[in-house]
Amino acid sequence: MRLTILGCYSATPRTMTNPSAQVLEMRGHLFLIDCGEGTQVELRRNKIKFSRINHIFISHLHGDHFFGLPGLVSTFRLLGRENPLHIHGPKGIKEAITLLLKLGDSWTNYPLHFHELTSKDPETLLKLPELEVSTLPLDHRIYTNGFLFKEKPKERSLDVEAARARGIDRAYFRKLKQGLNVPDREGKEVDHREVTLDPPPTKSYAYCSDTAYMEALIPQIKGVDVLYHESTFLKSEEHLCEPTKHSSARQAASIAKAAEVNHLILGHYSTRYKSLELFQEEASEYFGQTHLAEDGKVFDF
Amino acid sequence: MRLTILGCYSATPRTMTNPSAQVLEMRGHLFLIDCGEGTQVELRRNKIKFSRINHIFISHLHGDHFFGLPGLVSTFRLLGRENPLHIHGPKGIKEAITLLLKLGDSWTNYPLHFHELTSKDPETLLKLPELEVSTLPLDHRIYTNGFLFKEKPKERSLDVEAARARGIDRAYFRKLKQGLNVPDREGKEVDHREVTLDPPPTKSYAYCSDTAYMEALIPQIKGVDVLYHESTFLKSEEHLCEPTKHSSARQAASIAKAAEVNHLILGHYSTRYKSLELFQEEASEYFGQTHLAEDGKVFDF
Repeated sequence: MRLTILGCYSATPRTMTNPSAQVLEMRGHLFLIDCGEGTQVELRRNKIKFSRINHIFISHLHGDHFFGLPGLVSTFRLLGRENPLHIHGPKGIKEAITLLLKLGDSWTNYPLHFHELTSKDPETLLKLPELEVSTLPLDHRIYTNGFLFKEKPKERSLDVEAARARGIDRAYFRKLKQGLNVPDREGKEVDHREVTLDPPPTKSYAYCSDTAYMEALIPQIKGVDVLYHESTFLKSEEHLCEPTKHSSARQAASIAKAAEVNHLILGHYSTRYKSLELFQEEASEYFGQTHLAEDGKVFDF
Repeated sequence: MRLTILGCYSATPRTMTNPSAQVLEMRGHLFLIDCGEGTQVELRRNKIKFSRINHIFISHLHGDHFFGLPGLVSTFRLLGRENPLHIHGPKGIKEAITLLLKLGDSWTNYPLHFHELTSKDPETLLKLPELEVSTLPLDHRIYTNGFLFKEKPKERSLDVEAARARGIDRAYFRKLKQGLNVPDREGKEVDHREVTLDPPPTKSYAYCSDTAYMEALIPQIKGVDVLYHESTFLKSEEHLCEPTKHSSARQAASIAKAAEVNHLILGHYSTRYKSLELFQEEASEYFGQTHLAEDGKVFDF
């Protein structure tokens, strides 16, 4: 599981800071999450192949999370894309993108599918053999979802020699890998655990931006490997969190701790602060495994 | 007159090349012309004060000329802008920008005025005491205008000592500066040229992008000081000009020569070419005073 941060700052793009966008690689799939202005340039800078992106997830329709999308959709066309592109985002996103394409008389020559979201309850957006993606409804000024990416368990690894020695016909190997008990040559049941090993543990990633402190999130992200939680402010500016519906680093860390996640990544920083270290210090008081998102940073988990 | 090139490449933004956007400073006014994705970052990089921009001119609604506009309009709000902003561009631009603001529930707190263009004939968009801006209808795949910025003549400079010596009452000084003849103390008419000097010559700037080779443009831009004319291709790819409605460097130079402009600036280059020098060489064969636009380059005329 690899996470590439393309942008992790709030509000407007600046010369040294990009608005929200990141690429999650999971089981060979590349997912683009949010798409602030300049995302297509950051994809190039980070040498991410455009053609590998088939699903884009947009949390909400504030400009710093989706004003890069019209340009990216257009660029896919110029690059000769043929594969379908799926865009998952709040209702309205289809009207916006299609209007912009219509005004430029620039229809895509590849299939463009919009999956518009309106539900305030979690829903599954994508089911693949290897993983699932579902929404995490968040508490922001406008309708907003985070996204939960969960690998499905891989098959158990079979010790072929051991299985043969135990007298199991190869016709049963597939069932063993699926964790089922099978008969040996004499028809006696063999516990699959005798000849298989547990699959590697599954990974999961939760993207939560933008949101106010929200305890209802905790059970939904319980035990995920990696939580990206926005921390626009420090606790010294926590009075700004309620009116703007953002979180502080302290609040992000409290959520991470209560949800017993393995790693917390902070991001969506206000540019009012001189140093990101302040976010790390504050969050680490409450949750040890805290990491800082930075534009261009790659996390391998 | 100062022209700052923020971006001068065609198609998509890349790590080293920005799409169309430029700032013209004329008689103390700053005009933003086109606004490709990333323009607000380039404004910052070039240290141009956002608050000095009150008029934005958009040539056409292809993404590489206006996908930076929604973000810029939003950033003006975040910066606390209060002055009205005027956006001049093709019909549809108002619907696009207002839809994006509506989706983000991010109305501007400053007055935003759209001046939508539909005419295929030249029209005056802005009349200020010091200058005028009018359209240059162009020949592109969708409705497109160039823009002509023309200073109005300044007043003549008065030699106050000479005027007094010639026996002219100071009540007449204003008329002299305006180029009118006035009476001396004895009532005898004085030729204003005896006591005034010609004002500095007026400057003019024509922005022509995107367009196919278009001879009808020549009389409209006759004798301008500076012509920015797109040259997406070289003459070796001139067969692509007609289907895409773009121009070659040779064609841009032919227009400059026929219109007897003082300076030609080339831009809107296709990124297929390895070196911009090829554009300069080709155009210079036909027109001597050829300059190359480059991102971040500043021209003082």
